[in-house]
Amino acid sequence: MSKNLSRREIITRAVYAVGGAATFASVQACGSSAATTTTTPTTGPTPKDFPYEQHLPAGYRLDPAAVKEPAYHAYYEADGGCCHGSYSALMKHLAATAGAPFDQLPADFGRFGAGGIAGYGSICGSLLGGLLVINQIVSDKTARNAMMTDLLRWYEGASFPSYTPATVDAAETGKTTLDFSAANLVNLQTTPGSHLCHASVSGWCAARGVAANGPDKLARCSRLTADVAAKVAEMINTYLASTTTPKTYAAAAIDSRSNTCLGCHPKTSTTRPVASGMACTPCHSNQSLPSTHPVIP
Amino acid sequence: MSKNLSRREIITRAVYAVGGAATFASVQACGSSAATTTTTPTTGPTPKDFPYEQHLPAGYRLDPAAVKEPAYHAYYEADGGCCHGSYSALMKHLAATAGAPFDQLPADFGRFGAGGIAGYGSICGSLLGGLLVINQIVSDKTARNAMMTDLLRWYEGASFPSYTPATVDAAETGKTTLDFSAANLVNLQTTPGSHLCHASVSGWCAARGVAANGPDKLARCSRLTADVAAKVAEMINTYLASTTTPKTYAAAAIDSRSNTCLGCHPKTSTTRPVASGMACTPCHSNQSLPSTHPVIP
Repeated sequence: MSKNLSRREIITRAVYAVGGAATFASVQACGSSAATTTTTPTTGPTPKDFPYEQHLPAGYRLDPAAVKEPAYHAYYEADGGCCHGSYSALMKHLAATAGAPFDQLPADFGRFGAGGIAGYGSICGSLLGGLLVINQIVSDKTARNAMMTDLLRWYEGASFPSYTPATVDAAETGKTTLDFSAANLVNLQTTPGSHLCHASVSGWCAARGVAANGPDKLARCSRLTADVAAKVAEMINTYLASTTTPKTYAAAAIDSRSNTCLGCHPKTSTTRPVASGMACTPCHSNQSLPSTHPVIP
Repeated sequence: MSKNLSRREIITRAVYAVGGAATFASVQACGSSAATTTTTPTTGPTPKDFPYEQHLPAGYRLDPAAVKEPAYHAYYEADGGCCHGSYSALMKHLAATAGAPFDQLPADFGRFGAGGIAGYGSICGSLLGGLLVINQIVSDKTARNAMMTDLLRWYEGASFPSYTPATVDAAETGKTTLDFSAANLVNLQTTPGSHLCHASVSGWCAARGVAANGPDKLARCSRLTADVAAKVAEMINTYLASTTTPKTYAAAAIDSRSNTCLGCHPKTSTTRPVASGMACTPCHSNQSLPSTHPVIP
């Protein structure tokens, strides 16, 4: 155990002794050999020693900038997609920089989540991949729930896509009809409103006038995957920086997209109870509610 | 490796030599010692050797009946819930009857999924727990996607709850207001329509006239968790029984709850594309669509 910990401490010191993203990137550049030294530990934490926050070296932080490009490219892998993009980018980063037990887990675990789980249009796979990583680290239930709801809420209101890859993936070169250049990206952004894949994708594609199964959709979702992966890394860092025992995470307040609804639809109602944390109005708008329903302000 | 395989073969032979659920239950009854022999293998498959179908002994099958009672009780654990219920029941069953690498993974991984992920009201946690287990076993992408969409579709149209526990959990004794006896359970059933927690729970609670955070809701969802866990075990068995290479899984046909919609909203549309596998009409009913929308037959 001490042998393993000291090995990880060496990596951590190399990453943080000087500090900053540039230094981190240089360590990452020669990361393949560092990763090799941690893939087959003979002692130390195993996947069963869950959750894994307890095995992170003191002061450990992820590099949010470093997970974006791998997340973007993993999206385009065969049997890849959004969940594989965010999950594999974060897990490989953790395996390379924190070692065991992250390096003992399969980076391919997120492939099932593409298209809102097996193409079903449920929860956005990039979110699900991120949630699965948060779940592996955060040990306190209250903080875990706060982080998860915060990530989901953030997604509903964020403008996607925002990441511009360093290298455009070969899979999209010459195929997109929209201008995904860094200068024009802001003109392609919408807020999903919902954390569900089919609402997020359909809304963006309709706004942009493109099909939901074409190269423009792929270019949008691959960049969104990078955005979400980086957000998850930032959130985990915020949690790890907490100095309380147990660590805490301050989620953003639930906004008016639910508050006006839950006044009449509390969990405790015996006629129309609603147990939900997500924003109501993107799905249940005035337009979609029966005429007998009070108008939502 | 051969040492480990032969150990697992011995367990498999003990379970299947005579066959049938009764024999299986007897083996389970003395399962603690069997589990002990497989928890710390010195050789054999590890969690990284993913997916795990390749490590299952020939002819291996789960016992769907055996996962129900553990799933029901795990729901009531502190920081338990629906996702922990289905996930832990299936994983502990796999660990006890198939050994590595299932016995090297944390059975607590599903706690985050309660209440549609951290109480957010998204995908029903019992489904998410089941999907995470299917994902660990099924190696073929086409079969994996077919199984996952089939599970989600089945849930939308199934009548819940249907399981009656052998022993009512102490947490609900004397607290429920409805009659959850086996004879009356059929009178408490509804079909969720949606795979989302908040729609599933709200619909059932409104139909039964109970709150979404009270003991009746817990009694419903704990039994539903057992139903879903058993369904997942049945589906994995169906997949394992496939004799093709790669194995196949025949999903039920997508029914009229989507077909009439996708005619006007195909993925390929550039005005209103929808990429989704779920039933549309439970959320997008005639009542909820704008007056300019054609009436859904």
